[in-house]
Amino acid sequence: MQYQIEKRDPKSSARSGKIFTDHGEIPTPIFMPVGTVGTVKGIHVKDLEEEVNAPIILGNTYHLYLRPGLEVLKEAGGLHQFMGWNRSILTDSGGFQVFSLSERRKLTEKGAEFRSHLDGSKHLFTPESVVDIQRTIGADIMMAFDECPSGDAPYSYAVQSMELTHRWLKRGIEQFKKSNPLYGYEQTFFPIVQGAGYAELRKRSAEYVASFDMDGNAIGGLAVGEPEEVMYQMIEVVNAILPQDKPRYLMGVGTPVNILEAISLGVDMFDCVMPTRNGRNGMIFTSQGIINIKNEKWKTDFSPIDEQGHCFFDLHYSKAYLRHLFVAREMLGPQIASIHNLSFYLWLVSEARRQIESGCFSTWKDQMVKQLARRL
Amino acid sequence: MQYQIEKRDPKSSARSGKIFTDHGEIPTPIFMPVGTVGTVKGIHVKDLEEEVNAPIILGNTYHLYLRPGLEVLKEAGGLHQFMGWNRSILTDSGGFQVFSLSERRKLTEKGAEFRSHLDGSKHLFTPESVVDIQRTIGADIMMAFDECPSGDAPYSYAVQSMELTHRWLKRGIEQFKKSNPLYGYEQTFFPIVQGAGYAELRKRSAEYVASFDMDGNAIGGLAVGEPEEVMYQMIEVVNAILPQDKPRYLMGVGTPVNILEAISLGVDMFDCVMPTRNGRNGMIFTSQGIINIKNEKWKTDFSPIDEQGHCFFDLHYSKAYLRHLFVAREMLGPQIASIHNLSFYLWLVSEARRQIESGCFSTWKDQMVKQLARRL
Repeated sequence: MQYQIEKRDPKSSARSGKIFTDHGEIPTPIFMPVGTVGTVKGIHVKDLEEEVNAPIILGNTYHLYLRPGLEVLKEAGGLHQFMGWNRSILTDSGGFQVFSLSERRKLTEKGAEFRSHLDGSKHLFTPESVVDIQRTIGADIMMAFDECPSGDAPYSYAVQSMELTHRWLKRGIEQFKKSNPLYGYEQTFFPIVQGAGYAELRKRSAEYVASFDMDGNAIGGLAVGEPEEVMYQMIEVVNAILPQDKPRYLMGVGTPVNILEAISLGVDMFDCVMPTRNGRNGMIFTSQGIINIKNEKWKTDFSPIDEQGHCFFDLHYSKAYLRHLFVAREMLGPQIASIHNLSFYLWLVSEARRQIESGCFSTWKDQMVKQLARRL
Repeated sequence: MQYQIEKRDPKSSARSGKIFTDHGEIPTPIFMPVGTVGTVKGIHVKDLEEEVNAPIILGNTYHLYLRPGLEVLKEAGGLHQFMGWNRSILTDSGGFQVFSLSERRKLTEKGAEFRSHLDGSKHLFTPESVVDIQRTIGADIMMAFDECPSGDAPYSYAVQSMELTHRWLKRGIEQFKKSNPLYGYEQTFFPIVQGAGYAELRKRSAEYVASFDMDGNAIGGLAVGEPEEVMYQMIEVVNAILPQDKPRYLMGVGTPVNILEAISLGVDMFDCVMPTRNGRNGMIFTSQGIINIKNEKWKTDFSPIDEQGHCFFDLHYSKAYLRHLFVAREMLGPQIASIHNLSFYLWLVSEARRQIESGCFSTWKDQMVKQLARRL
């Protein structure tokens, strides 16, 4: 993986750049649609390429490991082949899902024992096995196995957890270095900064993570219940330490406003289920604000879903029609809302990039954050 | 509406032709995807045009009347505008749904009183109101209000029901003739032949229907539980009477084999929920036979969904991947299966057309019916 910075915003830590993987070029800042079980829910790859314009998507190791399972993925020649996606893929390590979804998990020095949320079957994830699994999935960017404490974790737990994550990181990197890609293209490995809402821990963790000098670095364990101000503060602390010349990935964040604020703090990569999950429930993000499309007020509003939108669907379908689909519980409703929201998120980061390149990011961002959170 | 016959098969009653509406040209034989509540379930109009290649779709008057309702449809400028579909639309009369879906329906000479299956609200459909509703929906082809008795209706009931349908037809045509399109394009009106499984009644009904000399004629009340042989026999009886120079529409039918057999009996138009409904349950129709994609046997079959397929999805995605989507209950599974099945149905009728034009239809059909019903 290669990364190059192109421009820096004079008034903030925002920067534009490009990541290059064997599956193509990724302009940054970038948002990665979440493709949990080998599909971005409700969107086929053609629309993902042509309408959403996503250069990279995210897959969940935990879900893919359980279904379709490693045997199928290996025989398919990896996830790209399996799901018919020829652009880049990043996989998380499964850590977050083990701790949030699985049943009766048990944490040891060795790793995390858990029971599948699907059938109760018993499994063990270790820092090493999670590298092997991601080798089999064949992600361009693989993530370290970490523990993610909740937003209100007490200091003593946060320290312990961070130290365990650090020991796991060392083992993960060793496994990464002694293993090889299976499908003829390069894979890279990002470590993850933890430390909950404690600046001192975040600093220690960022220093430890930076010391490995990997191709890119991630910030985990944020947007898990802590106040937004704490999140921004942690990002600032961490980004002051993480190397400038490597992309920084803020995991699982967030709202359009969160994304712009984090870009201004020097973050380059994002993923979040919000545009698809909230889209499936009728929440439409636009540059003018947020629409609850189920609302009666859209019943006879025949204006386009998003007049400022950037995909076919935004201009082709009306608010009244999309509302009707949700009211009638037609699956096309969640489909259109998901495509629109992702297209909007991808537009937002590409516009942020354009503003950074023209030197106007900070002014633009201040204007946008006022608009983006409005309820229409 | 215009219709012209292009070729007749020398060995059967099959014919190829073209229907022209103000929304375009429809090659016949044709299959119309069912767009129940203003959407072909799970398929956006772009894919419907580009992948499925549908020149006409069907809307359900009963469903559209209840949701989004006439007020919204009228304000939208009709269903084409509302759903963003610029090709042709045919609407049924709602009769079938009133008798199959609604609660506490009451049949009188005047019409059918029923309670909505959604909220129990009380409504009355008459032969006249159903014309008015279809004027508001703005279908290119509107259908007469009929009663559709079950496949095993006793003779006495079938006679009564047919005679009621005939009286309703007369009233419907009067209402059609004295009303006008609302949106600046032409609408036409098809009468429906009834008569259950009784050749004598079908003959009487076809003669009555033919006497109105409308732009096209439909055959209703088949594939409602009677043996297939009875269905084919009824089609033959009816088509011997319905005018040659008008398109014939067999309502709600059917399997790929049913469609080819009916084409050979002189039918030109079809609709059925089978490709989408069965598709949503994992049944995949192909020219080689039928696939239950949930079956374990496809788990590691990485060959395309349909090697002989005609849309992007058929060749891009594998059987193993589609199976995975169904096993993981991902909405993309039903979406891909629906697009594939409709694309296959549209291919089937266009290939039938091509075979009629080259004079080889009957031989081809005999070969195809053997393949189409196979279980793969």
